[in-house]
Amino acid sequence: MTKPTALVVSAHSADFVWRAGGAIALHTQKGYEVTIVCLSYGERGESAKLWKQEGCTLEHVKVERKKEAENAASALGAHDIQFFDLGDYPLEMDREAKFRLVDVIRQVQPRFMLSHSQDDPYNTDHPYATKMALECRMIAQAWGHNPGEKVLGAPQLYLFEPHQTERCGWKPDTFLDITDVWDKKRAAIECMEGQEHLWDFYTNVAENRGNHFRRNSGGQAGGRPARYGEAYQSLFPRTVDEL
Amino acid sequence: MTKPTALVVSAHSADFVWRAGGAIALHTQKGYEVTIVCLSYGERGESAKLWKQEGCTLEHVKVERKKEAENAASALGAHDIQFFDLGDYPLEMDREAKFRLVDVIRQVQPRFMLSHSQDDPYNTDHPYATKMALECRMIAQAWGHNPGEKVLGAPQLYLFEPHQTERCGWKPDTFLDITDVWDKKRAAIECMEGQEHLWDFYTNVAENRGNHFRRNSGGQAGGRPARYGEAYQSLFPRTVDEL
Amino acid sequence: MTKPTALVVSAHSADFVWRAGGAIALHTQKGYEVTIVCLSYGERGESAKLWKQEGCTLEHVKVERKKEAENAASALGAHDIQFFDLGDYPLEMDREAKFRLVDVIRQVQPRFMLSHSQDDPYNTDHPYATKMALECRMIAQAWGHNPGEKVLGAPQLYLFEPHQTERCGWKPDTFLDITDVWDKKRAAIECMEGQEHLWDFYTNVAENRGNHFRRNSGGQAGGRPARYGEAYQSLFPRTVDEL
Amino acid sequence: MTKPTALVVSAHSADFVWRAGGAIALHTQKGYEVTIVCLSYGERGESAKLWKQEGCTLEHVKVERKKEAENAASALGAHDIQFFDLGDYPLEMDREAKFRLVDVIRQVQPRFMLSHSQDDPYNTDHPYATKMALECRMIAQAWGHNPGEKVLGAPQLYLFEPHQTERCGWKPDTFLDITDVWDKKRAAIECMEGQEHLWDFYTNVAENRGNHFRRNSGGQAGGRPARYGEAYQSLFPRTVDEL
Amino acid sequence: MTKPTALVVSAHSADFVWRAGGAIALHTQKGYEVTIVCLSYGERGESAKLWKQEGCTLEHVKVERKKEAENAASALGAHDIQFFDLGDYPLEMDREAKFRLVDVIRQVQPRFMLSHSQDDPYNTDHPYATKMALECRMIAQAWGHNPGEKVLGAPQLYLFEPHQTERCGWKPDTFLDITDVWDKKRAAIECMEGQEHLWDFYTNVAENRGNHFRRNSGGQAGGRPARYGEAYQSLFPRTVDEL
Amino acid sequence: MTKPTALVVSAHSADFVWRAGGAIALHTQKGYEVTIVCLSYGERGESAKLWKQEGCTLEHVKVERKKEAENAASALGAHDIQFFDLGDYPLEMDREAKFRLVDVIRQVQPRFMLSHSQDDPYNTDHPYATKMALECRMIAQAWGHNPGEKVLGAPQLYLFEPHQTERCGWKPDTFLDITDVWDKKRAAIECMEGQEHLWDFYTNVAENRGNHFRRNSGGQAGGRPARYGEAYQSLFPRTVDEL
Repeated sequence: MTKPTALVVSAHSADFVWRAGGAIALHTQKGYEVTIVCLSYGERGESAKLWKQEGCTLEHVKVERKKEAENAASALGAHDIQFFDLGDYPLEMDREAKFRLVDVIRQVQPRFMLSHSQDDPYNTDHPYATKMALECRMIAQAWGHNPGEKVLGAPQLYLFEPHQTERCGWKPDTFLDITDVWDKKRAAIECMEGQEHLWDFYTNVAENRGNHFRRNSGGQAGGRPARYGEAYQSLFPRTVDEL
Repeated sequence: MTKPTALVVSAHSADFVWRAGGAIALHTQKGYEVTIVCLSYGERGESAKLWKQEGCTLEHVKVERKKEAENAASALGAHDIQFFDLGDYPLEMDREAKFRLVDVIRQVQPRFMLSHSQDDPYNTDHPYATKMALECRMIAQAWGHNPGEKVLGAPQLYLFEPHQTERCGWKPDTFLDITDVWDKKRAAIECMEGQEHLWDFYTNVAENRGNHFRRNSGGQAGGRPARYGEAYQSLFPRTVDEL
Repeated sequence: MTKPTALVVSAHSADFVWRAGGAIALHTQKGYEVTIVCLSYGERGESAKLWKQEGCTLEHVKVERKKEAENAASALGAHDIQFFDLGDYPLEMDREAKFRLVDVIRQVQPRFMLSHSQDDPYNTDHPYATKMALECRMIAQAWGHNPGEKVLGAPQLYLFEPHQTERCGWKPDTFLDITDVWDKKRAAIECMEGQEHLWDFYTNVAENRGNHFRRNSGGQAGGRPARYGEAYQSLFPRTVDEL
Repeated sequence: MTKPTALVVSAHSADFVWRAGGAIALHTQKGYEVTIVCLSYGERGESAKLWKQEGCTLEHVKVERKKEAENAASALGAHDIQFFDLGDYPLEMDREAKFRLVDVIRQVQPRFMLSHSQDDPYNTDHPYATKMALECRMIAQAWGHNPGEKVLGAPQLYLFEPHQTERCGWKPDTFLDITDVWDKKRAAIECMEGQEHLWDFYTNVAENRGNHFRRNSGGQAGGRPARYGEAYQSLFPRTVDEL
Repeated sequence: MTKPTALVVSAHSADFVWRAGGAIALHTQKGYEVTIVCLSYGERGESAKLWKQEGCTLEHVKVERKKEAENAASALGAHDIQFFDLGDYPLEMDREAKFRLVDVIRQVQPRFMLSHSQDDPYNTDHPYATKMALECRMIAQAWGHNPGEKVLGAPQLYLFEPHQTERCGWKPDTFLDITDVWDKKRAAIECMEGQEHLWDFYTNVAENRGNHFRRNSGGQAGGRPARYGEAYQSLFPRTVDEL
Repeated sequence: MTKPTALVVSAHSADFVWRAGGAIALHTQKGYEVTIVCLSYGERGESAKLWKQEGCTLEHVKVERKKEAENAASALGAHDIQFFDLGDYPLEMDREAKFRLVDVIRQVQPRFMLSHSQDDPYNTDHPYATKMALECRMIAQAWGHNPGEKVLGAPQLYLFEPHQTERCGWKPDTFLDITDVWDKKRAAIECMEGQEHLWDFYTNVAENRGNHFRRNSGGQAGGRPARYGEAYQSLFPRTVDEL
C-alpha cells in the first residue's frame, strides 16, 4: 500500500525548519513521506552571518546553507528534500520553474501542502512562494497539462507561521500538538548554525502555541497537556462527515 | 456510556431548520443528542403569512410557530427543543435570560455549538443571538458561576449559513455532507408551512453546497459524490494530531 | 445614433456564460452591443471531459471550446466574441497582449465592463484576468497611448459571481433581474456540453439571486417578482443625481 | 399622488447639516418630503462654544441647538424635523425610544434612509445611532409589530460621511452631485453658529467630493462638471434592470 | 510642575500585569504617575485555582484577587490602583459606573490610556472594557458633562496584547523596549499566584516582542539590543512634527 | 557629521508634490537631505493637457514633465531628484531597474521612505511602485547583494495620500503639521502647470488634514493650531522608549 504524502514549499532553505519542522517530524512518525522543496537557499538575504566572514562567496554560502538544510531535513526524518536554486531577494519563477514545481506536486500527490503566509511586508519572497504554490497546485489539477499524467486532487494548503504574525495578515485556525516530536524539531533548529539568534525565539513560539492548544481544547479549565505546538492557517474549507 | 451532545442556539423558531437541519439529523443519526434552544418564536418579524390572516393574535402566532418548530425538530430527530419565548424584533436578553442559557449549556455540555453569523444587516436579531451564545459560553466556563456545577470545556462554535452570505461577512470553512439525511431535512423544511417561499431556496442551497463539497474534496477532477451539503464557519481554531 | 456598448473580459471561454449570460442577453435586448473577449479557451484547465477522450489534442480541445463559446454567445445575442488564445493554467499577458486588449476597449468604448472577482484561491487565472482588465482600462484612458485615438472615459467595472463567492472575497452590491432573458441564458448554458455538471448549479444560483432581488427590493413583505437574477460587485463608486 | 419621501436619522442636532445637507436640499427640490430625526441635541458633547459662556445651563444649550437645527432644516427645505431629546454623550435608546423611531419610519415610509458610519472611535454616539436606525428599520418591517399598520419595504440605508473617514471604516460607493443646491447647504452650514470652525472644512469636503464625482463619471479625460458633491456608502445592494 | 500621567483600564484585576506591566513600570521610572482601574476582580471567571479549594466563597476570591493585584501594582511602582468591583463574566457597566470611570479619567488627565483589544471571542469582557474606555473617554471630552470640570484632551488609547492575538483582530503598531524594567514585570507576574501556568507564557511573549523590536529597529542586520518588549496597537493617529 | 536622509519613491513625476511636498520641505528645513526618485514621467497617462496640443510628441512631454518636477523639487528644497524613465501606463520594472533602485536606497541610507498606497483601482502604477519600493528595501537589506556595500537598516515606509483614499484601502495613522512650509508646498504645486485642476483640491486636502491634526492632538477642546497637514500610513510598527 502506498504511504500518505505531504509537500512543503519553502522560499528559502531554512524556512521549513522554524515554521513546519514539527509537522514534518510528526507526520513522518505517522507514516507519511514528506517532501520538501526549497525554492532558493536564502543565500543572499538570509545568511548574514556567513557573509560577515572574510572572503565569502555566493557559492560558499549555497554549499553551507544546503548542508544545514539537509541536516535539518534528516533530523526531522523527511523523505526527500529538493533544492530548486532559483535565487532569492528577490525570488522569481519563470514558466519553466513553475512547471518543475508542478512536476514535483504531481509526483508527490500530497494529501496536504505547506507554505508561507499570503502577506509579509518584511519579506516579499515569502508570499511570492505561496502565490507560486497556489498557481502550481492549480496547474497540477489541469487535465490538459502533460495529458496522461495523474492529475492532482484538491489537497489543503496550510500556511505556516510567519515571524511577525499580526503584520502578515495571518490568522491560525489549526493548532497541531507536536509534543511527541519536539526533540526532533529542536535538533533540526540547531542545525541552523547561521541563525542561532532564532533558536530560542522559535522554542518560545512552540511553547506558547502549546498553551494555545490547551486553551482551545480545554478552555479555562485546562485541557489536554500539549507542551509544544505549531499553528497553521488553512486556505481552503474542510470537507467533513461530522462537525 | 454517555452520548455525545450538541447545542443549537436559534434566534427565531425556524432558523435551525433552514440553516442546520442537516447537521441536526446527521449527528442524531451518529448517536448525538442534539438540543435546540429557540430564543424567540419569530412571532412578530418572521410570521407575515399568519399575520395576514383575519383576527390573528400574538398568542395564536406563537402557538402555530411552536407547533411547526416542534414538528421540524421531530422530523430531524432532535433530542430536545426548548422555547425561551424572549420576544423578537428586537430580541433582547437580560441577566436572567443569559443565566438560563448558561444553565442549558452546562446541562448539555455540548461537543459543539451552532448559531448565527456575526453580522447581518437585514436581521439584527441573528448576530445578537450569536453574541449571546458566545457570552454565555464564556460564563459557562467560569468556575465561580454556580460553584459546584460542572464547568464547560471549549466547544467549537460553528456559525451556520445566513440568507445572504456575502453581505453578512460570513465565510464558510467547513462543508458537511448531508446527503444521507437530506430527506429528513426536506421533511423538516416542509413543516414550515408559513414560509413555503423558502423551501426551494434552501433546497438549492443544499445542492450547491454539495457541489462545493465535491470541489473541495476532489477539485476539478470530481471528488466524493456528496449531493447535498451544509456550510459552516468556525469561530475558534481546531486542535489536531494530524493535518 | 450609436448604440450603447458593454465589454466582457472572460479568462476562459466558458466563464461569461455562467457568470454574466443574463446581463449579456438583457442588455442586448435593451439595444446594447455587447462584446466578449475570451483571453483563453480554458483548454488545459477547464476541459477535463474532452481530455478524458482517447487521442485528444490541444488543438482539438480549442476547436471544441471555441465552438461551444460561439454557440453560447449566439444564444445570448452578443454582438461580437473575440478569442485571444493566450493560453490558460496559467494565463499570462505580455505587453503586446495588454495593448491588444486596450485596442478592443477603445474600439468598443464600453458603458460598463464585466470581469472576474479580485481573488480566487481555486483559480488564479480569474483574478489575473481582472487585474489585466483594470490595468488595460487605465491604459485606455491615457492620452499618450496611441495619441489621436479616442481615450476611454470611466466605465464601471462590475465583478461577476465566482463559483465559491465567500472564499473569493466577493461581495455583491448590485442585483440584476434577468427573468425576461432566463430562457436565453439557460440555452447558452446548455451549449457548454463539456460541463454539464454545472448546468443545474447555475440555475440554482439564478433562482436564489432572484430571491435576493425580491428581498432587497421588497423586504420581508415580498417585493417585485423577479424569478431569476445575477449578482455583481462594483469596483468603482457610482455618480448619481438622486439617491 | 403622494410624494416620495426620505428619512434622516441624526445622532446630534447638527450632524445632518454637514453630512447630508446637500442630499436633503436636492431631494426636496426634486419633490421629496424629507424628514429629519435628531435623536439628541448634542447638548453635552458638541456645544463647547456655548458651555464656555458664563452661566450656561443644559436647558439653554438645548434651546440654542434646537433653534440652529430648525434654521438649518428650513434653509434646506426639509419637510419636517423632529427632536427626540434622548440625551448625548452617551446617546442611549430604550425600547420605548426605539418604538418611537419605528413609528416615524412607518409614518414616513421612506424611499431611502440616511444615517452615520458604522464605526467611529472618536464619537461612539454616531455608530450607535446607525445601529438603532438599522434595528428600527427591521422592526418596522415586522408584520407583528402594531398589526394593521403599513409595514416598511426595504429602503436603502445610506451612511453619510464621518469627520475622519478612513478611521471610521467608511467606504463611499455613491457620489451625489449637489452643485445645484450648494448655496442652500452653505446657508444651512452657516446656521451652525456654535461650530464656525467647521464651515470651511465641510466646504472643502464638498469641493473635493465634486472632484471625485468628475473623476468617477469621466475619468482622466474630464467628465461632467459637478462642482460640489456628497459621498455615501450603501448598506444594502441595489436591485436594477440595467447595469 | 505636575507629573505626566497614564491610565490603565483593566477588565479583571490581573490583566494589567501580563499585558501592560512593562509599560507601567517603565513610565513610572520615567516620572509618570500611572493609575490602574480594575473594573472587576475576575472573581468568577479567572480564579479557577481558588474555586477548586474546599469551601471557597465569592468574598474570599475577591479578597485574594485584590491582594494579588495590589502586590503587583506595588511591584510595578504604580501610583494608584482602584477596584470598581462591577462583577465579571459578564462585566456590565450602567450609567453610574460609566460616570465613575469618567471621573477618574478627568482626575487623572492621562497623556495616554491603555486597555484591551477590540475583539476577543474567548473573553467578551475584554472588548467590553475597551468599548467602555472609549465611550468614557468621549464623555470626559464633553464640555456639558459636569460643567466646570477640566475636560479631557485627546489622549491616545493603546490596546495591549490579548492572549491569542491573531484571533482577536489585534495588530500591533508600537513596540516598547521594557528591558530596563523586566525584573519588575517578572516580579509583578509572580504576584499572580493563582495563575502560575501563565508566568512562562508571558515571559516568552516578552522575549519574542524584544526580538520583534530588534527586527523593526534594525532589520536583518541586527539593531538595538532590546531583550524584552511589549507590543501595542494605537486606536488613534499620531500627530507629529517629524516623521 | 552626516545629515539625516529620506527617500521618496514616486511612480510619476508629479506624485511627490501633491502627496508628500510638505514632508519634503519640512524635513529639508530640519536638516534632512531628501532624495526623490521618479520612476516615470507620467508621460503617457498623466499629461492630458500637453497631449491635447497640436503636434505633441512623447519626447516633448517628457521634457516638460521633467522641467516641472525639477522646479517643484527645487521649490521644496529637495537634495536630489532622479528620473528613472521606466515608462508609465503601465509602469514595469525588470531586475536591472530594481537593482538600480536598490543602489539608490543604499547610497541614501534613508531614515524613512515614502511611497504610494498599497491599492488603487484607478491607477495600477501607484501600488506597483510601492510593491517595488518594498521589494527593493528588502534587497537592500541583504548582505549577499553586492557584498561589501553597507546594507540597509529597517527604515519606516510611509504611504502617502492617494487621490480617493477610502477606495484605496489607505488608513492614515500619522498626521504631520506642515504649516511652517505650506508656502513652499503651494509654490511646488503651482509648478505643475499641466494639472492646474488639482491645485485647489490638494490645498483643501492640506487644510482638512490640518483640522484632523488639531482634532487628534487636542480633541473637542481645540488643540495645537496646525493650519495645514499631511497624512501618512505606516507600513511597519514603530519601536519606542515611551508611549
